[in-house]
Amino acid sequence: MARQLHFNLFLHDTGHHEASWRLPESDPRANLSLEAHQHLARIAEDAKFDSVFLADSPVLWSDPGRRPSGKLEPTLLLAALAVGTSRIGLIATASTSYNDPYNLARRFASLDHLSKGRAGWNIVTTAGDSAARNFGLEHQPSHKTRYERADEFLAVSTKLWDSWADDAVVADKDAGVHARQDRVRGIDHRGTFFRVNGPLNLPRSPQAHPLLVQAGSSEDGKEFAAKWAEAIFTAQPTLGESQAFYADLKRRAAAAGRDPDHVIILPGIVPVIGDTEVEARELDAELDRLIAPRYAVTQLAETLRVDPERLKLDDQLPADLPSEDEIEGAKSRYTLIVDWARRDNLTVRELIGRLGGGRGHRTFTGTPVQVADTIQHYFDNGAADGFNIMPAVLPSGIEAFASKVVPILRERGLFRTEYEGSTLREHYGLPRPVNQFTTADSAPGRSAS
Amino acid sequence: MARQLHFNLFLHDTGHHEASWRLPESDPRANLSLEAHQHLARIAEDAKFDSVFLADSPVLWSDPGRRPSGKLEPTLLLAALAVGTSRIGLIATASTSYNDPYNLARRFASLDHLSKGRAGWNIVTTAGDSAARNFGLEHQPSHKTRYERADEFLAVSTKLWDSWADDAVVADKDAGVHARQDRVRGIDHRGTFFRVNGPLNLPRSPQAHPLLVQAGSSEDGKEFAAKWAEAIFTAQPTLGESQAFYADLKRRAAAAGRDPDHVIILPGIVPVIGDTEVEARELDAELDRLIAPRYAVTQLAETLRVDPERLKLDDQLPADLPSEDEIEGAKSRYTLIVDWARRDNLTVRELIGRLGGGRGHRTFTGTPVQVADTIQHYFDNGAADGFNIMPAVLPSGIEAFASKVVPILRERGLFRTEYEGSTLREHYGLPRPVNQFTTADSAPGRSAS
Repeated sequence: MARQLHFNLFLHDTGHHEASWRLPESDPRANLSLEAHQHLARIAEDAKFDSVFLADSPVLWSDPGRRPSGKLEPTLLLAALAVGTSRIGLIATASTSYNDPYNLARRFASLDHLSKGRAGWNIVTTAGDSAARNFGLEHQPSHKTRYERADEFLAVSTKLWDSWADDAVVADKDAGVHARQDRVRGIDHRGTFFRVNGPLNLPRSPQAHPLLVQAGSSEDGKEFAAKWAEAIFTAQPTLGESQAFYADLKRRAAAAGRDPDHVIILPGIVPVIGDTEVEARELDAELDRLIAPRYAVTQLAETLRVDPERLKLDDQLPADLPSEDEIEGAKSRYTLIVDWARRDNLTVRELIGRLGGGRGHRTFTGTPVQVADTIQHYFDNGAADGFNIMPAVLPSGIEAFASKVVPILRERGLFRTEYEGSTLREHYGLPRPVNQFTTADSAPGRSAS
Repeated sequence: MARQLHFNLFLHDTGHHEASWRLPESDPRANLSLEAHQHLARIAEDAKFDSVFLADSPVLWSDPGRRPSGKLEPTLLLAALAVGTSRIGLIATASTSYNDPYNLARRFASLDHLSKGRAGWNIVTTAGDSAARNFGLEHQPSHKTRYERADEFLAVSTKLWDSWADDAVVADKDAGVHARQDRVRGIDHRGTFFRVNGPLNLPRSPQAHPLLVQAGSSEDGKEFAAKWAEAIFTAQPTLGESQAFYADLKRRAAAAGRDPDHVIILPGIVPVIGDTEVEARELDAELDRLIAPRYAVTQLAETLRVDPERLKLDDQLPADLPSEDEIEGAKSRYTLIVDWARRDNLTVRELIGRLGGGRGHRTFTGTPVQVADTIQHYFDNGAADGFNIMPAVLPSGIEAFASKVVPILRERGLFRTEYEGSTLREHYGLPRPVNQFTTADSAPGRSAS
């Protein structure tokens, strides 16, 4: 069979366009509705998507006036979505800067058990002082420190997930032995950021551990991804940038001693689909018209670290913006926005329109065939192994994609008509992780007492 | 209508008796099975129980050989159980010593939103060095420190839950205003243990916040419960002790300025039900026969802080045990066990049999009428507002209770035949909490920007 596309649906209440909640069709309280999320997950599962995904940060993200800003905690929401779905993968974002590895490793192991092998973890280090201030800090740790902690967090987590051998539980009623004590081990981790004894209080899960997903694209972020990530979400506004990122990450993965085919690259795409080009452009224009500039300017100024007074709607960006080196966190996003505005000579108003739609991701407005053509073009030209689908409006955008774009890609033999595997990793064609302790005689750690 | 009983089902895979997993009927992997938990929750909901409850600790609790020791994280498991149930309350245990208030307050707010007002939090401070060693500490913080942190944790959490006024979200599509900025406030908490800016990234939930549940019965634990708890689980082996505890807690709640009727006291009961007394006693004996003494002695020695070699199966406990003052954590449990063994002159083997069944809770072996009589006797004599039902064997123990004991109590007019309210707090007859910020003009904190 030909190489196959992979699709993830990025769940985002009424859609990724910031004004989507204002459309007449939208439920402006969908962000808090289990039923709205269940509906989206079922559409994606019916279309045989690999996974659904929730972004997250432990802070009130945006001005609560601007758009629905309340966010249900993703691991809980996905645990609820595991009921009523049976095949689709469930990827939750969680921060390595503002969690303890024992608790978080356990939540993901629990999600993997509950969902019978469908858990994924989008690993983030959480940029921004406002999140830090919810956790006893005045300022966020430096970019470098956050990534060092993330690396150790993953080392601890994988040890915890491997602390039970796959054959530890014997459940021998006659002998009165539930698990073999010598197959359950403490991890005795002593590092820079963490000291964790273990073992985890859960047997190894169906997938061994959640699919590891990552999205940073700074230098530190890419090195982290090359070492740990099995799937990568990325914002690349053009084909050329996407190709360069794809080649770079595959090269880095190989350099880290990994099989590059085991790192799945999924650029984001914001499809705005109409039966005709005119219809698609009309939806696009309606959405941009609904953006309230007062909120958007404030947020842009915050991202760019400039006084909001200096951003004039019909002027270009000020010339004297800080350099990426001066930005602690969300570096890649900062550079992406500035480069984009400069390259296309955008006014602040135009930049806000583009960011309101795709937040730096590739927005594509067109007919189903045009969207399918674009996806195939990326896929065939070393720019993507699949896509992170970010509909501007939900649920209509994913309904249109599932009913109109997916059948075209199936006709071309590029996307599954049925699930073949049962776990998330199987959907992405990835192997189940080997247990780091039970393969070697020199297993670290002590046995549990 | 007469005063009504309240029932909570304490979920515990194959049952509260430690050997229950060895019975021919038991699924020894039920601890990891969503379906097994769904089955139990549905039985309890069909019987119109107020709630189900999961205990927890962020550590491998017992010897993995002894019994099923893997535990799915309770907030995730209850989020999954929220789907497929619609009325029953969902109470998860979580530690104030090994969580951050921002993250935990958010998980409980998420569970309350997802379940439409059915979340409860059993607040624990987590005794034991082994848990501490999963979180960077060599030893647990002192009992006093743990309770001081718990008190501040609750102060932070309630501020976060109140950081959105109930009327904050307006979702005004025409005006392009989703929430009123002046009704969403930072909390600017600066305390001994925590500094948290807020606001929470979730609007106020259906119940305002989860039902607050507590189970400590040390001096610190009882003072904490009197201040914060709306429902109290407690282990009281005799009627007299239960009456004394009941009166003491109601008195302490009144002294703390609260309505004693708003503190629901729920002693644990381990019913072992047979259609005849002989049948009930046979089940009891079969369970005790299945206890493997090698594991039980080790655990008892750990609880009592003595060398396991000093515990002889057919002798009584050594005379020179440490005093409660020397025990850091689980003080009340320690004293309960020692007093019980001394009062009844139990051998180690007999003590193990009693602990294996109810772990210090009231075990009651008998016919459905005898169980119903005991419950009513406690309820009518100032010893209980309801019970935490802890069947020795699951699911058969809750099936027997629901089908045989509940109808008797209904005939006597003591237990509901239908749910009247929709939230967990409504089931327990408790008022929805008032928002501490929006009732006063002098609202602390700044408005969110």
